Amino acid sequence: MKRFSDGRILACAIAVVTSVFSLAAMATPQSGPGAGQSESAAPLFAAEIARSKAFVTEMMREGVNVPVPKDTGGGYTHEQHKRNYRAIYEAGRLYRLTGEKAYADFVRDVLIAYAQLYPRLGPHPARSNQQYGRLFWQNLNDAVWLVYAIQGYEEIRGELQDAERQRIDTDLFRSAARFLSEESLATFDRIHNHATWSTAGVGMTGYVLGDQDLVQRALLGSKLDGNAGFLRQMDLLFSPDGYYTEGPYYQRYALLPFLLFADAIESNEPKRKIFERRDGILLKALYTTIQLTYAGHFFAFNDAIKDKSLNTEELYQGVAIGYEQTNDPALLSIARQQRRVALSDAGRRVAIDVARGLSKDFPFQSLLLRDGPEGQDGAVVVLRRGDSESGQALVAKNTSQGMGHGHFDKLSWQYFDNGAEILTDYGAARFLNIEAKAGGRYLPENESWAKQSIAHNTLVVDGVSHFNGDALAAQAHAPRQLAYGNAANLSFSVARIDSAYAGVTFTRTLAMVGIEGLDAPVVADLLRIQSAGPHRYDLPLHYQGHLTRTGPVLKSYAAVRPVLGSDHGYQHIWMDAEASPTATDAFLTWQLNDRFYTWRWVPQAGSQLILGESGANDPSFNLRREPMLIHRLNAAGNAVFAGILETHGNDDPELEQTVASDSQIRSLSLVSRADADVLIIETLGGRRVAVAVSRETDAKRTHGLVVGDENIRWTGPVGSVVLRPADRS
Amino acid sequence: MKRFSDGRILACAIAVVTSVFSLAAMATPQSGPGAGQSESAAPLFAAEIARSKAFVTEMMREGVNVPVPKDTGGGYTHEQHKRNYRAIYEAGRLYRLTGEKAYADFVRDVLIAYAQLYPRLGPHPARSNQQYGRLFWQNLNDAVWLVYAIQGYEEIRGELQDAERQRIDTDLFRSAARFLSEESLATFDRIHNHATWSTAGVGMTGYVLGDQDLVQRALLGSKLDGNAGFLRQMDLLFSPDGYYTEGPYYQRYALLPFLLFADAIESNEPKRKIFERRDGILLKALYTTIQLTYAGHFFAFNDAIKDKSLNTEELYQGVAIGYEQTNDPALLSIARQQRRVALSDAGRRVAIDVARGLSKDFPFQSLLLRDGPEGQDGAVVVLRRGDSESGQALVAKNTSQGMGHGHFDKLSWQYFDNGAEILTDYGAARFLNIEAKAGGRYLPENESWAKQSIAHNTLVVDGVSHFNGDALAAQAHAPRQLAYGNAANLSFSVARIDSAYAGVTFTRTLAMVGIEGLDAPVVADLLRIQSAGPHRYDLPLHYQGHLTRTGPVLKSYAAVRPVLGSDHGYQHIWMDAEASPTATDAFLTWQLNDRFYTWRWVPQAGSQLILGESGANDPSFNLRREPMLIHRLNAAGNAVFAGILETHGNDDPELEQTVASDSQIRSLSLVSRADADVLIIETLGGRRVAVAVSRETDAKRTHGLVVGDENIRWTGPVGSVVLRPADRS
Repeated sequence: MKRFSDGRILACAIAVVTSVFSLAAMATPQSGPGAGQSESAAPLFAAEIARSKAFVTEMMREGVNVPVPKDTGGGYTHEQHKRNYRAIYEAGRLYRLTGEKAYADFVRDVLIAYAQLYPRLGPHPARSNQQYGRLFWQNLNDAVWLVYAIQGYEEIRGELQDAERQRIDTDLFRSAARFLSEESLATFDRIHNHATWSTAGVGMTGYVLGDQDLVQRALLGSKLDGNAGFLRQMDLLFSPDGYYTEGPYYQRYALLPFLLFADAIESNEPKRKIFERRDGILLKALYTTIQLTYAGHFFAFNDAIKDKSLNTEELYQGVAIGYEQTNDPALLSIARQQRRVALSDAGRRVAIDVARGLSKDFPFQSLLLRDGPEGQDGAVVVLRRGDSESGQALVAKNTSQGMGHGHFDKLSWQYFDNGAEILTDYGAARFLNIEAKAGGRYLPENESWAKQSIAHNTLVVDGVSHFNGDALAAQAHAPRQLAYGNAANLSFSVARIDSAYAGVTFTRTLAMVGIEGLDAPVVADLLRIQSAGPHRYDLPLHYQGHLTRTGPVLKSYAAVRPVLGSDHGYQHIWMDAEASPTATDAFLTWQLNDRFYTWRWVPQAGSQLILGESGANDPSFNLRREPMLIHRLNAAGNAVFAGILETHGNDDPELEQTVASDSQIRSLSLVSRADADVLIIETLGGRRVAVAVSRETDAKRTHGLVVGDENIRWTGPVGSVVLRPADRS
Repeated sequence: MKRFSDGRILACAIAVVTSVFSLAAMATPQSGPGAGQSESAAPLFAAEIARSKAFVTEMMREGVNVPVPKDTGGGYTHEQHKRNYRAIYEAGRLYRLTGEKAYADFVRDVLIAYAQLYPRLGPHPARSNQQYGRLFWQNLNDAVWLVYAIQGYEEIRGELQDAERQRIDTDLFRSAARFLSEESLATFDRIHNHATWSTAGVGMTGYVLGDQDLVQRALLGSKLDGNAGFLRQMDLLFSPDGYYTEGPYYQRYALLPFLLFADAIESNEPKRKIFERRDGILLKALYTTIQLTYAGHFFAFNDAIKDKSLNTEELYQGVAIGYEQTNDPALLSIARQQRRVALSDAGRRVAIDVARGLSKDFPFQSLLLRDGPEGQDGAVVVLRRGDSESGQALVAKNTSQGMGHGHFDKLSWQYFDNGAEILTDYGAARFLNIEAKAGGRYLPENESWAKQSIAHNTLVVDGVSHFNGDALAAQAHAPRQLAYGNAANLSFSVARIDSAYAGVTFTRTLAMVGIEGLDAPVVADLLRIQSAGPHRYDLPLHYQGHLTRTGPVLKSYAAVRPVLGSDHGYQHIWMDAEASPTATDAFLTWQLNDRFYTWRWVPQAGSQLILGESGANDPSFNLRREPMLIHRLNAAGNAVFAGILETHGNDDPELEQTVASDSQIRSLSLVSRADADVLIIETLGGRRVAVAVSRETDAKRTHGLVVGDENIRWTGPVGSVVLRPADRS
């Protein structure tokens, strides 16, 4: 992958990400706030304590309840053991914070009950494979239990009588750590997020029990050779830019055990300088996690539940641990947005400094995040204008497959504006924890729809998903990020993939272009296909909103809606209408909330437009019903799909005033030459701008071509050039 | 109409509405705040001034622009004249508030330009009927122009040179008032909301010009006999409970000219005691307007745009004028929610008192609002639990037709919870001010879908809308509100209509029943039909949310969706599935936001369930696509539809914890006897409650019947009785 800069195109993602904190500037963490500091100086923290007291008090009222493991996820014993580890953790913290003995006694009593139970447990009765737990049906949950429980135990261990301590040490924690690190090697020695939880639990237990052997196994793997274990996971599970290959939703989840264990390492072995390892990868990963959001919600590509936001335990802990390391006031603004802090000394510091008004806006910005341990496996590009609450954000998803939770959506994109997702990614077909929906697990429609290429804003060839829907094949081939640029008036991403379909290479340029006189930057999308053909190309655009104006003459399926196809996701699409657009009528306008969006494109000869909706062949009502448009080109070889998305107007229900509800662009045309494609945009106001895309990706190279009697010159792979105003006299 | 009270059933709506203010307690309005009071003491008002200055400054920068009228709504001259009246009004107010001469000069210059133009104008060139204006295509807009412009003029008139004043008085305002009150009698002398604007404009002009003739015409109608005019409108356009017959959306709109003119009357002729007229009808109407909201949004029945909220100019003025009259701190809480105040002395007082912390919660509550000038034409009943932001609200729409904007939805209902509309009313099929959607006017689908009975939660007989969709016939017959009750654990409405279909009488009881152990009250719906039959009965329920569990075995139309019918709205319904429910599987659960809702019913022998979605035969994408269920009973005579809506559970994406996502009710059964129907609800926890509905509506009468070996006794038309817990040992 190359990076580019000319006069206007700025630096690469690494610089962007690392700029928000500096290892040199890291403060030594304070050794906890003075006991004299009043909680009233930190209302966020006071609220955490109150919230936690309410929960723990209720748990204490219910009494110690450590049931013999029986149920799978969502069932009674499963949920009770989850509540227990939360109670152990929070009661331990409350004891430390308040000094009230009752909390310590409760932690002790619960742990003794576990110490009585644990040695009698074998493999969980509801296990479904070899990666089973003892307390829970899967090993992962046992590891999570250990991570939380050991933190609670740490707070009270010094208060115990020797016999109690020894019993809990031996029968419970050492036994649990042994189970994870000796009997569960299939999880423990993986380079995988589940193993991070496992090694974190074991390592943190090692520190608390003073057991260096456990610590070593956790850091270096069960063979103590460094080919597995926590340090190796740090080296392989994040890209050099701190991107986690499964995508933002799982990045959030993966982050927590990394940060918790690293925090423990820093406390116990500061000489390891764990937060500096690999150029500060863990803090990079924290910042990257936050950057991968819009209006507080994670970009929901790959398997992702769309309601997941920065308001999550992982990010309360992340902000606290990150702030302890960096003192970066931008993290305080995240805490302000969360209105929550971690129940820890670090969380208290965050709350105090928020109350002191030290917060600064988090620098949400355009950036390129390489994927893969070496940064060679594609990338995510985020292009932004304005803030992350109401401004524009474009996500170009040029990453590798991202393992089992990846979707077949190479070079797909999403667009956000005005606080909402405008061009959408379906995310996962899953109702997490909703018993009625397959017990809260991934639904069959996650495979049949959500993962399929047609469910994404990307090219589908011959009605077949990328890599023929084969995850193993997909995992072996990543797109190439060819270029990235970010300047005031033009930011862009160029990426290519030649492996999604045999004999088909496609290159997608996505650019955010500022045009004087328009409300918001225009997004230009130029997708060039090289192939001997003949193929059928489908290019969908999934959007949110209500169609207000449709340019082409529609053939409507108003009374009988055909289903678009029979497999690869097509079986889930109802057809609403078809059209054969022309150069002048190829646009659609829709409204979402108080704003309007127009997609306008350059129709290829013979191409069709299909308007559709998801939800066909969905007898269990597992899918959301969402609109889409599909560009279809039959029997083609080389081809270009070119379009622009315009964000315009305002609909004010309070004033009952609507402005610019129709497109502010008069025309769009495409000039394709041997070495470049040029989109020419003319606004209603008569402004004309060319967006030029070279086949060359050299950042320094200057290009030129003549359109009509105008010379268009630009440097680098993408340029935007203001042309002579339209003369319409 | 009767009202009922027994030990538990509380008083009627009048008492409820009048209780929130007291004529006796009305303060004399202050004569304006002292000039020394700093705006910093009233940040809401300071913000209004800043907002207004920004607008007026921009208008002054653009210069005086009074174009010759040409365009219809949304067009250039139309919008410019709208901006002008707003500028005249606000610049006048700014002059009064700041003393800055430039504002007065601008008002003068704009008005002189109007005075030059106005005498040359005839009927508007884009008029479409006899109720035309001169500045605008319809008379209404000219009246609105006058109401605003005269207020701005009033602020600067004293500053003018005699010649200027005389010219503006004569050529513009007297001329405009004459046009409305002499040449536009078809509007002016109606008993109609448009005439309210017209009389308000004329009367306010009369006060400012010192022209008693104009005032008299405005108050008493053009014939000065009191059969028309403002006072007569006050007597006829609101019911005794302050309900405006067109429904909440238009009530809001109708309110403003009433309050503005009344405010002027109060200032100029306090001896009229206009705010005391008809038992304080105008303030009642204000309070009723606010009561007809949930989470700040108006109940959207009849023609209504759903995004219309309390954040609207009508309610800024309403709160200010109302507060001036009542000093009711509950109105301050509305201003707090609006975060806006009127740009007037009264608005300033509101802002100051909000800043002083004098605000108290507005008493949103259950109430009965009679419809019709005498209160004889049906009613709206609102049943509430909890606050209006997150609590439960049920709206029983038992009103008269409500003129041309009425829908064919007798005895329909809506339900709100958790900040959202759960059981919905489609509102109007209209995209206000969106040029692409029929120029922002009502769409054809407003007639073909939004007004039709099947688009509402009410009974449809033989596939035909109420009154066969004939608005004149509908206007002649209102339902009868038979009973209303409101106690802590049981509130209800009983209403009947016998005129919607020949030979069919139906009576609907809607009750909110508290049941121990459940998260929220259960809504019981019992609809009893008396008819010789045979008829086909359809009872739809339109809901918002995603189906999570469907009880009955479904026959799915997963790949070909039939359209349900060909007219009366049925042509717009896609069928998703059908079922023949049984007593044990007759329920559906859906999720909206973080909560779950289960509709459970007692299926009649041979009845069907249809799951459908709006959007068929909608080639222009004018309809929202929304789910519904329809109960269908063929070839029936007398019949009972009985069901309950349960609000349950919580889905917390932050904690990733879901509780009670499935129904907490084990069973529902119906016992019908000659004189009563009893719904028996049993919860999973074993609690059993009977909801008993007598055919008698006498509030004092006590009823009893035996079910199994249990005696059920209650007083009044509806009772809820706790039965013996289930014995499931």
